[in-house]
Amino acid sequence: MFEAAELGQRVSKDDFSNREPELQTQLLALQYQVREAGIPVVLIVSGVEGAGKGAVVNRLNGWLDTRELETHTFWDATDEERERPRFWRYWRTLPARGKSTIMFGSWYTRPIIERTFGKIDEPTFEQQCAQIADFEQMLAADGTAIVKFWYHLSKKAQQKRLKADQKAGRKGFTVALTKKFAKHYDDFVDVSGRALRITDKGGSPWHIIDAENRRYRDLATGEILAEAFSQALERKRAEAKAKKPKRKPARKRPRKVSVLDRVDLEASLSDEEYRRDLDKYQQLVGELTWKARQRSVNTVAVFEGWDAAGKGGAIRRLAAGMDARQYRTISIGAPTDEELAHHYLWRFWRHLPRTGYVTIYDRSWYGRVLVERVEGFAREEEWMRAYGEINDFEDQLVHHGIVLLKFWVHISPEEQLKRFKEREAIPWKQYKITDEDWRNREKWDAYVEAIDDMVAHTSTDSAPWNLIPGNDKKYARIAVLKRFCQGLRKAL
Amino acid sequence: MFEAAELGQRVSKDDFSNREPELQTQLLALQYQVREAGIPVVLIVSGVEGAGKGAVVNRLNGWLDTRELETHTFWDATDEERERPRFWRYWRTLPARGKSTIMFGSWYTRPIIERTFGKIDEPTFEQQCAQIADFEQMLAADGTAIVKFWYHLSKKAQQKRLKADQKAGRKGFTVALTKKFAKHYDDFVDVSGRALRITDKGGSPWHIIDAENRRYRDLATGEILAEAFSQALERKRAEAKAKKPKRKPARKRPRKVSVLDRVDLEASLSDEEYRRDLDKYQQLVGELTWKARQRSVNTVAVFEGWDAAGKGGAIRRLAAGMDARQYRTISIGAPTDEELAHHYLWRFWRHLPRTGYVTIYDRSWYGRVLVERVEGFAREEEWMRAYGEINDFEDQLVHHGIVLLKFWVHISPEEQLKRFKEREAIPWKQYKITDEDWRNREKWDAYVEAIDDMVAHTSTDSAPWNLIPGNDKKYARIAVLKRFCQGLRKAL
Repeated sequence: MFEAAELGQRVSKDDFSNREPELQTQLLALQYQVREAGIPVVLIVSGVEGAGKGAVVNRLNGWLDTRELETHTFWDATDEERERPRFWRYWRTLPARGKSTIMFGSWYTRPIIERTFGKIDEPTFEQQCAQIADFEQMLAADGTAIVKFWYHLSKKAQQKRLKADQKAGRKGFTVALTKKFAKHYDDFVDVSGRALRITDKGGSPWHIIDAENRRYRDLATGEILAEAFSQALERKRAEAKAKKPKRKPARKRPRKVSVLDRVDLEASLSDEEYRRDLDKYQQLVGELTWKARQRSVNTVAVFEGWDAAGKGGAIRRLAAGMDARQYRTISIGAPTDEELAHHYLWRFWRHLPRTGYVTIYDRSWYGRVLVERVEGFAREEEWMRAYGEINDFEDQLVHHGIVLLKFWVHISPEEQLKRFKEREAIPWKQYKITDEDWRNREKWDAYVEAIDDMVAHTSTDSAPWNLIPGNDKKYARIAVLKRFCQGLRKAL
Repeated sequence: MFEAAELGQRVSKDDFSNREPELQTQLLALQYQVREAGIPVVLIVSGVEGAGKGAVVNRLNGWLDTRELETHTFWDATDEERERPRFWRYWRTLPARGKSTIMFGSWYTRPIIERTFGKIDEPTFEQQCAQIADFEQMLAADGTAIVKFWYHLSKKAQQKRLKADQKAGRKGFTVALTKKFAKHYDDFVDVSGRALRITDKGGSPWHIIDAENRRYRDLATGEILAEAFSQALERKRAEAKAKKPKRKPARKRPRKVSVLDRVDLEASLSDEEYRRDLDKYQQLVGELTWKARQRSVNTVAVFEGWDAAGKGGAIRRLAAGMDARQYRTISIGAPTDEELAHHYLWRFWRHLPRTGYVTIYDRSWYGRVLVERVEGFAREEEWMRAYGEINDFEDQLVHHGIVLLKFWVHISPEEQLKRFKEREAIPWKQYKITDEDWRNREKWDAYVEAIDDMVAHTSTDSAPWNLIPGNDKKYARIAVLKRFCQGLRKAL
């Protein structure tokens, strides 16, 4: 893998001085175009210790316009980062459209180091690399330009640099680090090579650079970056030119059985049963969430459902069982412009709470495969790949030890109509009903199709969908409380 | 202070059942109007332990629409919070316009507890309370409705509640906490009383509620909140009606001497001097910032200056002296919609970096008293009070141990014109010059006036302005490096 980076490439001082101004001019012009085109750029700087990654980052900061550029270094994770799934710290640094981020250290660092020093086994390592590849493919599919640099030094060259440091009396953090890694050079290079191979994909290829000669290293970096900028611009232009596929209307397929047909909408509770069960299960929710907190178990409850299905009421009854310090409700409305400038999952990552809480999402990432699909806000290829992206995302939550509970509150179209009319009649409820609700209603069949697909693709063992009969509000509320308790109890 | 809250107010069960539905209806309607009016609401829930603050928070979450409401509890600060000035954790939870935040625990908790248990002395306590009052006044002036509840229990009532808990065999976090505080009841009430008195201001008055009877407590809370919503709406309407004052043009005062006149624009360096000094001071910057990191000293460098004054070039030369892991450049462009939905200082608080770094702000909070003043984006009363707000903000940075260095890079109007023309002539520099730059240029005199006022109001002992002569780029870059080193060395 690294043979081509041990050929002793060199650039002379004069050559460098001649080529640098032109290269910088080119980079700045391209960076400006990339910004105008709204392309987010992720630059990954990694490689062998002693290869001068810090110097490269400084050089790039000198060449590029730093107004559109952020550099993030990943020292030890903070406690806020450790209390969330592993990728949270990377999501929080991902660039908005038109911005660039240099990642000095990245999602590669931990798996490679842990494998090199034998802290994780080979299957775990390979699984983590595969996860990284999926993550990068997801960003690339969303339009992010990912430019990955690996700076290589042969064993001999690394030793030479160490000796030079020693001779010059250099000390400090980086020299100590290089020393530590030099002892494990063979393992490190071996492990890195495998990581690079697994993650070397079309949308995010690796660029391996011979780092022995500093001038060659920097010039090669600049030239590859210019090339990557150009390619990203070309892709963007090609996309814009390509005829947009017509939005397909919902397939007019023969009315088949939907998963929703199996929900028993006749289910109901008497007032007396309701009051008794409400007391009982709210108390149980209180006990279980308190126990969960003591055991550092997090819970995420996701609520989706038809307009006027009674999500809000069910959420309020669930929350009322808990200590106000222990839960947080996150309501998902229209995205802000910062959220729109990122991958659609970014806004959910950014709101992921710390350990020890119950988080209730009132609507969620499933908007991508429901409203965005039905309304055509997302293209077919976008919502199609969202199922996999959502499963990956939820896997990370579950893997982090989060209990994930998903509820779809179902009502019949007739019941919805009745509730809409009720809302229109009560002055202070009028704000809860908008023209959009009426428009959504007309697309009932398209939604049923989307819901069927959603359940088919994302009802997994670790995070199954709970389809809640909602025509009787009392029944729905108790059913949510019950399922919540069951889910939590199973995990404790 | 608390006598009026020990009168034994009661509400019967029937009375509560009768009044609750109407109150909730009213609250929801008002909450909706508050959202439409874009008013941010901060609800502070505090008081004596055992008074049932958690129950109140739950009740409010039940009554209000949780889609526009967030509850924040402040357990122990995270390390990310501890590494920033004390108010950072509160800034990050402040509601956007139209949203509400319940603060369960707040900026009051720490000073009151620390004073009760003798961990801070009385002057420190009173200074912190005064700081809180300033902070709240600042939010109120910006349109935030601040509703502060203090739940009071007499000593006897607290004991009674403790006994009831004991009898019922209740345990857990809150009971233990109440026990701990009961032992210090007198001190706690005494200290709290003083805190309330210092912070009981027109824009953010305290509401002290007798918490012995749970129904009275909750009903009073709801009614006060409804009243506070109504008042906030009225204020907003009155503001909208009040005739907007005409934007005043820059005072055409007799050309007086400006602080900028004292900047020696003839200052220059030869190429040789420049190269020598650049090497020397970049190396020094590297050494000093490394030392600062070892001693956990943070540095914030703020750059302001005329368009084309050479801020970017100076920043690049400064950054080139440092390890890429140690600094971060934050470029302040147009605010995002999330930023616009908050107090203007919010975006700077949110980007405050953690300990151990140098943070370079390319443009800053001074935009409020420069471009926003000159362009009329901020009303006169807004930018007038900004000087005090900025000084308070910078005080908090300095108090946290941050070395704060402020640079204004100055050039003559003639030099600016020359550079604008140069930029227009070079293809890849054209993006750096816009129509706006030409428009700003016409307002030179208004800017000079704003700069004079800015320096007069905000050049403090702990954070003086450095006025850098910029007609000679080489001189300016070295001057910035020198001042940076001086400032940092003084602090080490």
